[in-house]
Amino acid sequence: MHIETEATQHLRRAANAAREASRHLAKTGEDTRNAALRIMATALRDHTQEILTANAADVGNFNGSNAFRDRLTLSPARVEAMAKGLEDVAALPDPLGRVLADWTRPNGLNIRRIATPIGVIGMIYESRPNVGADASALCLKSGNAVILRGGSDSLHSAAAINAALVNGLEASGLPRACIQVAPNADRAYVAAMLAGAGLIDLIIPRGGRSLVERVQQEARVPVLAHAEGLCHTYVHAAADPAMARAIVANGKMRRTGVCGATETLLIDRAVAAAQLPSIVADLRALGCDFRADTAARAIVPDLTAANDTDFDTEWLDSTISVGVVDGVDAALAHIARHGTSHTDAIVTEDTAAAERFLAGIDSAVALWNASTQFCDGGEFGFGAEIGIATGRLHARGPVGLEQLTTYRYTIRGNGQVRA
Amino acid sequence: MHIETEATQHLRRAANAAREASRHLAKTGEDTRNAALRIMATALRDHTQEILTANAADVGNFNGSNAFRDRLTLSPARVEAMAKGLEDVAALPDPLGRVLADWTRPNGLNIRRIATPIGVIGMIYESRPNVGADASALCLKSGNAVILRGGSDSLHSAAAINAALVNGLEASGLPRACIQVAPNADRAYVAAMLAGAGLIDLIIPRGGRSLVERVQQEARVPVLAHAEGLCHTYVHAAADPAMARAIVANGKMRRTGVCGATETLLIDRAVAAAQLPSIVADLRALGCDFRADTAARAIVPDLTAANDTDFDTEWLDSTISVGVVDGVDAALAHIARHGTSHTDAIVTEDTAAAERFLAGIDSAVALWNASTQFCDGGEFGFGAEIGIATGRLHARGPVGLEQLTTYRYTIRGNGQVRA
Repeated sequence: MHIETEATQHLRRAANAAREASRHLAKTGEDTRNAALRIMATALRDHTQEILTANAADVGNFNGSNAFRDRLTLSPARVEAMAKGLEDVAALPDPLGRVLADWTRPNGLNIRRIATPIGVIGMIYESRPNVGADASALCLKSGNAVILRGGSDSLHSAAAINAALVNGLEASGLPRACIQVAPNADRAYVAAMLAGAGLIDLIIPRGGRSLVERVQQEARVPVLAHAEGLCHTYVHAAADPAMARAIVANGKMRRTGVCGATETLLIDRAVAAAQLPSIVADLRALGCDFRADTAARAIVPDLTAANDTDFDTEWLDSTISVGVVDGVDAALAHIARHGTSHTDAIVTEDTAAAERFLAGIDSAVALWNASTQFCDGGEFGFGAEIGIATGRLHARGPVGLEQLTTYRYTIRGNGQVRA
Repeated sequence: MHIETEATQHLRRAANAAREASRHLAKTGEDTRNAALRIMATALRDHTQEILTANAADVGNFNGSNAFRDRLTLSPARVEAMAKGLEDVAALPDPLGRVLADWTRPNGLNIRRIATPIGVIGMIYESRPNVGADASALCLKSGNAVILRGGSDSLHSAAAINAALVNGLEASGLPRACIQVAPNADRAYVAAMLAGAGLIDLIIPRGGRSLVERVQQEARVPVLAHAEGLCHTYVHAAADPAMARAIVANGKMRRTGVCGATETLLIDRAVAAAQLPSIVADLRALGCDFRADTAARAIVPDLTAANDTDFDTEWLDSTISVGVVDGVDAALAHIARHGTSHTDAIVTEDTAAAERFLAGIDSAVALWNASTQFCDGGEFGFGAEIGIATGRLHARGPVGLEQLTTYRYTIRGNGQVRA
């Protein structure tokens, strides 16, 4: 037998406590969980000064870019936003106990499929301290215990936020072990979490590609991960030109760093000459660069030529790939070849073409006449999300409270035995 | 870069062909898939002689137990049963295209969650050749391409069955790559499948514990596995004595080797003296052995004493652990400590006790006044099952056609852009 490392021992203790807490939580009514969330919100507000002091230590130690520093830095308003976020989650419908199916067999057995918590969730995230508070709220509401491992940059902030949340938890009478944080920023703790088969039921990584790839590579536990979002907007021959301009500009440039941002514009050859120049002009006015195929450059000659990999690039920046295609099937073929089954849109006034696109695509989210940036839990009406899932099992797209549940069956009989 | 092994190269080609086939399959209507299943059934019947000849070679090479030899051996009736199984799957409702949710946001976006195939499934199974035909049928019906890797004992049988099925597939106009088999019994092929992240979307292992554990340990791909089923039947103080006898005897002894078999009997102290002797007598008459705690042995002294691990043992045989408990909460605590969250039953006439049990347990299947042996896709009305899932994500309990699907969203707008 190998000797357990300190990280593995700690994780085992934390996970066992989390398991017990999750069993308690699974039996609570929504009133108990919602009351706890509201008390935790108050505790966050009451601990604002401690949280800001801890955060100042993290910011003082930070050596990275200004953009990351801004995401790391808390203010009274950001603490208040976290507290408000907890109250918002408390106000959402209870995801537990929903009867997902209910049928009775010829032998009289009544079978019900009921939404139930997953159990113990491990959340591994980077940088933004509010992610810990959001994840804690969503996990608690959905009856799951959570073990949080934030980035080393936000270690003090995460600990102070957790202390406030646990203070609220205890005041509400729920076990502290519902929400736990990693004891340090040691990478061995991440390894212990990823190896925790039987201890942790689900790992959710939230961060940059290297974090997500490490998690997917190493995890011996199921993972709900967000990998690439190479999203397309396809302007069909029957698109309303003004609508196409608005949807492309919004899909690409509203925010370029989000996973639902359009990375590639496809446009039908039949309307490219008429519509591409104004679409390009709109994007250019917003600061966008282009990587265009030969046909697009024949129409707007000053676009930069696309190279072999551009159509496979998730820009997450003010750059868009532009390709000319011949109809819905060609657009679908392009997307099947270069896309990541994340979010893809068609703009058209032709219902048959739209339905052909929606039926023929495999993306988690397929839109007709709307911006790809709608791929978001809030926009779906989920109230809050813990991330976007790009795998194919359990959940696809925005992961809200419902997606943080699983199910079990209850069967009611009157003495049935099996033949 | 490391050099790809022959197995990895073969798997990559097979998986790429499967991906293309799965995309084709996802767009087919149910009529097409059902017609193919019926043609495949005919092809199986037409190839009975070839299948039996291949099977005879496997049986001739076989060196294991008689029980395994029996499971391996095909007959004209067993080939007919496989063919009938394909027709039964054809007759089931289409699992694809179901609208799982449908709502409209205040901004007018209509969001629908639609059942869709998972994609490419890898099935790794042992011994019984009919598993390959069943899995092929369920995957095809649910729009998934499948790569089958049977056990080395049934290699010739699997190849002959597959040849017949593919013959039927092609006659129906669907791509051959919808159903593929591993080229040999090399364990490296299993390793390639398990390492096939991005190539295979889901691995389903079906076989003994060592196979399942290897798959869970090595897989870099999501797994829907069947691990342990340590099922309990709890006879509550308010149980109907005759019903309790029937349910315990059936739960334990109907078939002892199935995952839903009762492995532990718990009985309330208040009724143990009155009811345990007759329950024991019934089981003993059916050939069952006992491992009993002190309190049970105080009532029926000739029961064998349970040791420290007996209550943690999945017997899968004619042995049952017997424990005396004090009420529902004690039974739940015992099950939480020793159970595997698979299938557990309570026998009682007390509705409040039953509901407390059903609400307080975490098992995939919790029964009231019915035998644990009802944990079965056919008994659930699924028509057929590819296995029973013991994980917590995506599916729990019997895995039928619905559980072989995932979902995607279609969103219909009229020009919405995100603020």
